[in-house]
Amino acid sequence: MKKVSRSAAFLSLALLSAAPPADSPAIAGYSLESSRVERDWEAKFRAIPNQQNLRDYMQRLSARPHHVGSAYDKDNAEWMLAKFKEWGLDAKIETFDVLFPSPKERALELIEPTRFTARLQEPAVAEDPTSNQHAEQLPTYNAYSIDGDVTAPLVYVNYGIPEDYEQLDRMGISVKGAIVIARYGASWRGIKVKVAGEHGALGCIIYSDPRDDGYYQGEVFPKGPYRPKDGVQRGSVMDMPVYPGDPLTPGVGASPGAKRLALKDATTITKIPVLPISHADAQPLLAALGGRTVPENWRGALPFTYHVGPGPAKVHLKVQANWDTKKLYNVIVKIPGVTFPDEWIIRGNHHDGWVNGADDPISGAVAVMEELRALSLLLKQGWKPKRTIVYCLWDGEEEGLLGSTEWAEEHSAELRRVGVVYINSDSNGRGFLQMGGSHTLEKFMNGVARDIEDPEKKISVWKRAQLQRISHPADRDDARKRADLRMGALGSGSDFTAFLDHLGIASLNIGYGGEGGGGVYHSVYDDFYWYTHFGDTDFAYGRALAQTGGTAVLRLANAELLPYEFSDFTDTLKKYVEEIQKLARDRRDAILERNKQLDEGFFAAIDNPSEKLLPPPREEVPPYLNFAPIENGMAALNRTADHYERVLADAAANGGAALARAQLKAVNEKLIQIERALTLSDGLPNRPWFKHQIYAPGFYTGYGVKTIPAVRESIEQKQWREADEQIVRVGKMLENTGEHIEAAASELERAVK
Amino acid sequence: MKKVSRSAAFLSLALLSAAPPADSPAIAGYSLESSRVERDWEAKFRAIPNQQNLRDYMQRLSARPHHVGSAYDKDNAEWMLAKFKEWGLDAKIETFDVLFPSPKERALELIEPTRFTARLQEPAVAEDPTSNQHAEQLPTYNAYSIDGDVTAPLVYVNYGIPEDYEQLDRMGISVKGAIVIARYGASWRGIKVKVAGEHGALGCIIYSDPRDDGYYQGEVFPKGPYRPKDGVQRGSVMDMPVYPGDPLTPGVGASPGAKRLALKDATTITKIPVLPISHADAQPLLAALGGRTVPENWRGALPFTYHVGPGPAKVHLKVQANWDTKKLYNVIVKIPGVTFPDEWIIRGNHHDGWVNGADDPISGAVAVMEELRALSLLLKQGWKPKRTIVYCLWDGEEEGLLGSTEWAEEHSAELRRVGVVYINSDSNGRGFLQMGGSHTLEKFMNGVARDIEDPEKKISVWKRAQLQRISHPADRDDARKRADLRMGALGSGSDFTAFLDHLGIASLNIGYGGEGGGGVYHSVYDDFYWYTHFGDTDFAYGRALAQTGGTAVLRLANAELLPYEFSDFTDTLKKYVEEIQKLARDRRDAILERNKQLDEGFFAAIDNPSEKLLPPPREEVPPYLNFAPIENGMAALNRTADHYERVLADAAANGGAALARAQLKAVNEKLIQIERALTLSDGLPNRPWFKHQIYAPGFYTGYGVKTIPAVRESIEQKQWREADEQIVRVGKMLENTGEHIEAAASELERAVK
Repeated sequence: MKKVSRSAAFLSLALLSAAPPADSPAIAGYSLESSRVERDWEAKFRAIPNQQNLRDYMQRLSARPHHVGSAYDKDNAEWMLAKFKEWGLDAKIETFDVLFPSPKERALELIEPTRFTARLQEPAVAEDPTSNQHAEQLPTYNAYSIDGDVTAPLVYVNYGIPEDYEQLDRMGISVKGAIVIARYGASWRGIKVKVAGEHGALGCIIYSDPRDDGYYQGEVFPKGPYRPKDGVQRGSVMDMPVYPGDPLTPGVGASPGAKRLALKDATTITKIPVLPISHADAQPLLAALGGRTVPENWRGALPFTYHVGPGPAKVHLKVQANWDTKKLYNVIVKIPGVTFPDEWIIRGNHHDGWVNGADDPISGAVAVMEELRALSLLLKQGWKPKRTIVYCLWDGEEEGLLGSTEWAEEHSAELRRVGVVYINSDSNGRGFLQMGGSHTLEKFMNGVARDIEDPEKKISVWKRAQLQRISHPADRDDARKRADLRMGALGSGSDFTAFLDHLGIASLNIGYGGEGGGGVYHSVYDDFYWYTHFGDTDFAYGRALAQTGGTAVLRLANAELLPYEFSDFTDTLKKYVEEIQKLARDRRDAILERNKQLDEGFFAAIDNPSEKLLPPPREEVPPYLNFAPIENGMAALNRTADHYERVLADAAANGGAALARAQLKAVNEKLIQIERALTLSDGLPNRPWFKHQIYAPGFYTGYGVKTIPAVRESIEQKQWREADEQIVRVGKMLENTGEHIEAAASELERAVK
Repeated sequence: MKKVSRSAAFLSLALLSAAPPADSPAIAGYSLESSRVERDWEAKFRAIPNQQNLRDYMQRLSARPHHVGSAYDKDNAEWMLAKFKEWGLDAKIETFDVLFPSPKERALELIEPTRFTARLQEPAVAEDPTSNQHAEQLPTYNAYSIDGDVTAPLVYVNYGIPEDYEQLDRMGISVKGAIVIARYGASWRGIKVKVAGEHGALGCIIYSDPRDDGYYQGEVFPKGPYRPKDGVQRGSVMDMPVYPGDPLTPGVGASPGAKRLALKDATTITKIPVLPISHADAQPLLAALGGRTVPENWRGALPFTYHVGPGPAKVHLKVQANWDTKKLYNVIVKIPGVTFPDEWIIRGNHHDGWVNGADDPISGAVAVMEELRALSLLLKQGWKPKRTIVYCLWDGEEEGLLGSTEWAEEHSAELRRVGVVYINSDSNGRGFLQMGGSHTLEKFMNGVARDIEDPEKKISVWKRAQLQRISHPADRDDARKRADLRMGALGSGSDFTAFLDHLGIASLNIGYGGEGGGGVYHSVYDDFYWYTHFGDTDFAYGRALAQTGGTAVLRLANAELLPYEFSDFTDTLKKYVEEIQKLARDRRDAILERNKQLDEGFFAAIDNPSEKLLPPPREEVPPYLNFAPIENGMAALNRTADHYERVLADAAANGGAALARAQLKAVNEKLIQIERALTLSDGLPNRPWFKHQIYAPGFYTGYGVKTIPAVRESIEQKQWREADEQIVRVGKMLENTGEHIEAAASELERAVK
């Protein structure tokens, strides 16, 4: 063991040193000669990020609440702008005017069988110097809840996801006319409200059960990192799976002159009022519920028996917002490219928080700032990027990816032309490299990860991530044998969404995490005190993130040939296609089995008279779907990806001498358009804003990704005809993508001839 | 659905009616003609059991605490004796004198960092009229704990099973010199003390976590059936996997003249003191623990973060017993057989409880009593059993299967000769038929189950059990396609143990359950009030149990040919053999994989510095085992079972006319000895009392069964040489069993020629 880890450390130190071994292979997209130059600059870059700087930036940026519309949000943007200018960079602030509701009135009372008024307030903690900034804190609420004032019996709906309502149906319980209480977790919060509304609930309460991020998980703040009894998770409930960004300006930038919808026509505002609460506020409500005991997997960690209701608990919920327009402050830095100025490498992290937001998002934002400082030093040493580099510190992410979405929409025509890659980060912590994104970049990102040293273990972050995957039996073989670690697909939940899903720009999302737990997400306790006690306390992983993001940016900016790669991509796509084929089979089998059980008298026979369950409905057996169009599309992709691979191998032979002398502009232009080919201009069924046909946030999962979404969600929603149509559409899109790959391959062949 | 359930109900009603359809097939072991007579008597029998009687018996038997040595225990025995005599039956009480420790002193205090004295007392509940009989209640304790007075730091060990100590090793925590606190569940309680002692703990506390049988599961008593905060689970901690029964007289009946061990030489007394407590008493102890947060699957439902310790909590534990000898009162009823008086069908249920014991064991005992009343009525109508029927109401089961074990040991020579079948029951509840036992009786028991009507669903209890199994995807296909439902193997935990494991008498354990939950096991709240509110409140399933047990007894007592069957048996045995082969492979693979991970530097790389885990030890890769001897044994079994099957089919042809005229005494005598052939006189490795080579309670599971135990446990304990030796021994035993089956087949062939 020791031997292995020592030699791995030696290896990665060698890669980190300013003078890499003479026999280092060429970086993908580089000739051997230009690789040497590139490695030299990268090593210089990685030596720069400084942990004390990261700490200082965080202390400044999280010193006061800095949500959209707050004084300190603007102040932070201006401070960053000044810093970037001080470093000699070309920086500016781009503003947008967006709808941003903030609480005017919030009330929650239990009125039967006993009375209790919820506190709806997070108290200050003596040890924590910023937790008492009540005057500036945004109260606990869910942004983009519709206004409402409702009184109704209460029903506990577990996580409030669609499966939970299937269970309620079996129990014979309807939420129609009720107020539901759901616990945070298992899906993005906006889904809970949406699904509750679809089932006829009048209102929705979302609380943090101690099982999910409180004392059940570990010691609570300030003794430990988990959510204390009065801690509340704020958060947006905008229906982002329909479209993110300003609800009044879908598809266009929320500039002063933009045409705006009337508030009543904004489809991403919730249909029923919703309020988040602490478990201290939830406990009397839940304890007052009667009715049957909840199923085992519905139970939280509060010390009583959980019941479903409805009633006897009856609650009064009132939510009213100031429906104001607020200004966003995106800070944008541009380093022009000298060879390919019209090819942009974009890097971003948001700067706004719900309150002090030290972890979310400042832990990521400070790494991005430090990348910029390092780039500014390289520029002073004579380094010049071939491509244009754009760094973005977004505002308004928390409310619905406002800053990034409005910017991407505002500049969409240009971005569709010049956008090469968008690299996002957000919160950052101790642990393992987490990477997700477009699979055309999987090989590239694996290459970057191999060159970053893990600050704790002194092996490469790639090696550490590989060993983590080996710890999961299902991933073990793949992690050991496959050349590259698999990269997760992106759903939503951060600022890559508009770039990837709306514009079709190949995107990455990177960060470190997995070691420290925590439960202060979106509360007043996510602050400098918490982060420096329980987060990446010495900013070692903040430094690693700056090294990772910066290395990726440098390497993309100066590659001769853009390092997109299509064999990992098609390998992954093949898995997705197999998944949806299996999904269709499984759905069919499940319905056949269930109908058979209905025939057998199964449900009546096993039913427990003291806990009766209604039999599930009989369903029509779904037809077999014709997957041939997608299979033909895949065949085209495989064929053309193979061709590109062969051409690339030829071009890279002999130290990439051909690459070094070729004119690759036309090839790169063709390569950039390949991710665009994965989009369709009319988007996904019922949500045209989402144009990417391989990745999308799930309509009923929110952040969670659905790959090949048009087909997958049609099957999940049992829309068999729609599924057949979408298969044809996706199949054509894949064939078209294959043509784009073929064109790039031919262009490359010509260029290096 | 309705159609199916209606026709199934029709079918079972038809089977239940006094006049079965003329075309009913013959019962296994009967000719068609004698089947008609048998069915007639069975139908008469099943009409007799009366729910009000069951209720009345329970009210009487559970009116006062009736543990071994109590006045009411003897009183109950004498009352039953009088009843049986009143019904005209030949009944007697057989007594034994056994070691029975009862509490003299119990103390548990937290002495650091704060002070708390455990209450160790279950308070009376106003609604429950017998919960206040403090003067007669046995205090909360674990019988057969060694005396001790220890003070030491506390360590939480989860369920206290061997895997938990492997986790503690990884955490770098030793229990040496500590007092451990384990929660009830996941294994039999005696294992927790044994394993704690083996790891060097000085004392052991076992508590009932509300997660496992308290408020987490449902409403607590008296509002619901689950364990209230002060409820305590008493129970024996005698090391029964070594030998059950009186610790001073292993292998022989504890009659007045029996040779007795000195107390210090009794190996089944615990090595360290142990005390069970409520979660109200456990909460201050657990809350005072520091150290690391426990792993996820160690967490209970108390409202704080669970820690492992050791300390700062320090506790003082004192346990001292009166090491008295007490008298057991087994009530034995014998109905002599007219044709085969030396073939005994034995039926039993214990009558002693820990306190009032309404559920455990009176709910089962009253059904057995009602069977006896029904049999007495049949006798008066002229029915006569071919074989001798023996009914046993055991004393002292709770302390260590005392009554049944001493009786079986006392009469062992006779029982080995005449014992055909032992049918046990214990607690009974609402729900599904649960059957376990010797697989030579699997087909027989399936046949009985097909003829019993479920009182709730009006389909056969067999059908209902089948549909329940269909609800488990892993069992679905088997339950739908196999002619017979699989029967579980028996471990220990009730009075079948001595019959099956020590004497090799084919045994069954039957009961109903699975609908009502509960958490009053072994507490003062297991009483008439609880049972009539939350148990089988109208005794419908008590009646079903009497019908089931009685039908089985009748059918065995009057069969021409004993209905053992060997194809289900060999089919099941084949699965066990495959399981242990897989176990050996999996162990090997797991060690190879772990060693590979140690080589990869895996554990160091994924370790979280704030929750450090030591790497697991490197282990020697196990050799491949030679399973050929068992495979050859299985081949012999398959061949001879097939032969018996063919002969039996011939004998049963033409309505079993051959059976009707044959002299089958010699065949039956040979058949009886087949289960005996599955035993070896020197027993299992290190525990010679356990002689059965197919079934045994696990040395480290207690109640949980280990099939082919000598081989399986050698593999589990990584004793590879021992495993190879045991494979040879078991293989020979199987070949010998095959010879016994062959002898029975030949004998049957001769008899029906």
